[in-house]
Amino acid sequence: MKNDIKFAVILAGCGVYDGAEIHEATFTLYGIAKHEASYDIFAPDIEQYHVVNHLSGQVSSEKRNVLVESARIARGNIKPTSELLEKNYDAVIFPGGFGVAKNLSDFAFIGEKCSVNEEIATIIKQFHSNKKPIGALCISPVIVARVLGNIDVTIGNDTNTASAIKSFGANHIETKHGEVAIDKIHKIFTTPCYMLDSSIVQIAEGAENIVKAMIVTINR
Amino acid sequence: MKNDIKFAVILAGCGVYDGAEIHEATFTLYGIAKHEASYDIFAPDIEQYHVVNHLSGQVSSEKRNVLVESARIARGNIKPTSELLEKNYDAVIFPGGFGVAKNLSDFAFIGEKCSVNEEIATIIKQFHSNKKPIGALCISPVIVARVLGNIDVTIGNDTNTASAIKSFGANHIETKHGEVAIDKIHKIFTTPCYMLDSSIVQIAEGAENIVKAMIVTINR
Repeated sequence: MKNDIKFAVILAGCGVYDGAEIHEATFTLYGIAKHEASYDIFAPDIEQYHVVNHLSGQVSSEKRNVLVESARIARGNIKPTSELLEKNYDAVIFPGGFGVAKNLSDFAFIGEKCSVNEEIATIIKQFHSNKKPIGALCISPVIVARVLGNIDVTIGNDTNTASAIKSFGANHIETKHGEVAIDKIHKIFTTPCYMLDSSIVQIAEGAENIVKAMIVTINR
Repeated sequence: MKNDIKFAVILAGCGVYDGAEIHEATFTLYGIAKHEASYDIFAPDIEQYHVVNHLSGQVSSEKRNVLVESARIARGNIKPTSELLEKNYDAVIFPGGFGVAKNLSDFAFIGEKCSVNEEIATIIKQFHSNKKPIGALCISPVIVARVLGNIDVTIGNDTNTASAIKSFGANHIETKHGEVAIDKIHKIFTTPCYMLDSSIVQIAEGAENIVKAMIVTINR
């Protein structure tokens, strides 16, 4: 048993429609702390693609920064992703939210042809080549599949997203609430969360299950 | 056993320094759903007192609306507090965050002389006079004490805040992590959460404990 397991958690803003999904992010942090591991939180220091009024669903004319807004979930205790590789983490994990498809990549806009933010892509490649677990909730498996190609991931059962994932050379595994798809060879852990119509209890369950599965692998 | 217990959850924005504390809000919703009760989420449709950059801690020149920002935590499923009393709820609960002391009241700025937003004060008085439980996490007990006066509440052990609470005619009970102070006569439930230096696991525990205690009272 490794008793000082440290996760890097990467956020994409603060709010489901233009940033990190708040419940998924909170339960990811909780899952890590509950299982006596620890975390540092990171986000890219870039402008958000746009700001969505979460009451009306309309795009507003505001400008917001991904790192600054992610700091709301982190209670100020956050660093830019540019500093992530300076320290040694046992695993990296991405909560979901549209911010992953709008700020960490442009998947929300151009689908299969999307590219991933360079800092984020470098982090994913580095953890993969160091054989360290990579976790991704909700829509986040898309960016991991885009960067690594031939891996197994799940985003639940959405056929359009699954088809985009296949176009990256990855394999899509259908899953239900709380289930974690594990690619043992590449140490990729994914769970659908709000990619399925879910209750907040199911989100907590999915986030805890993925963190637990990653910790088991780290302890092996 | 009442098997369709319905909570009204009142938020004060989105982010500890100028709105609702995100972890406390998320774990309050989770605690309610986990114990098979349900909730609607509300916030006042007013401008935030100010916007704090949660990375730098500095006040920014932005303008944001409390209801619109609270909608981030609620994933868009939120109503203005002006509509809360149109429906019949079994209990009302306030997660914490500086927004409670800046947007729902002006306690952060003038302390003992503070006043509470009129809509919020009316809701507190209405639940109290209907003998329905009122829950408050973190700094929120301050506004309940300000409105109701002679009740028992806790904000943990901060002596300045406790002294302000006493100046309202209320009684302060010192508590530790996860403990809930219960005023059985007035059905007031309070727990310190981030008013104490807490881990996210302790916040989850406090939020679950307060919700459980309220449900027990409702079921009596």
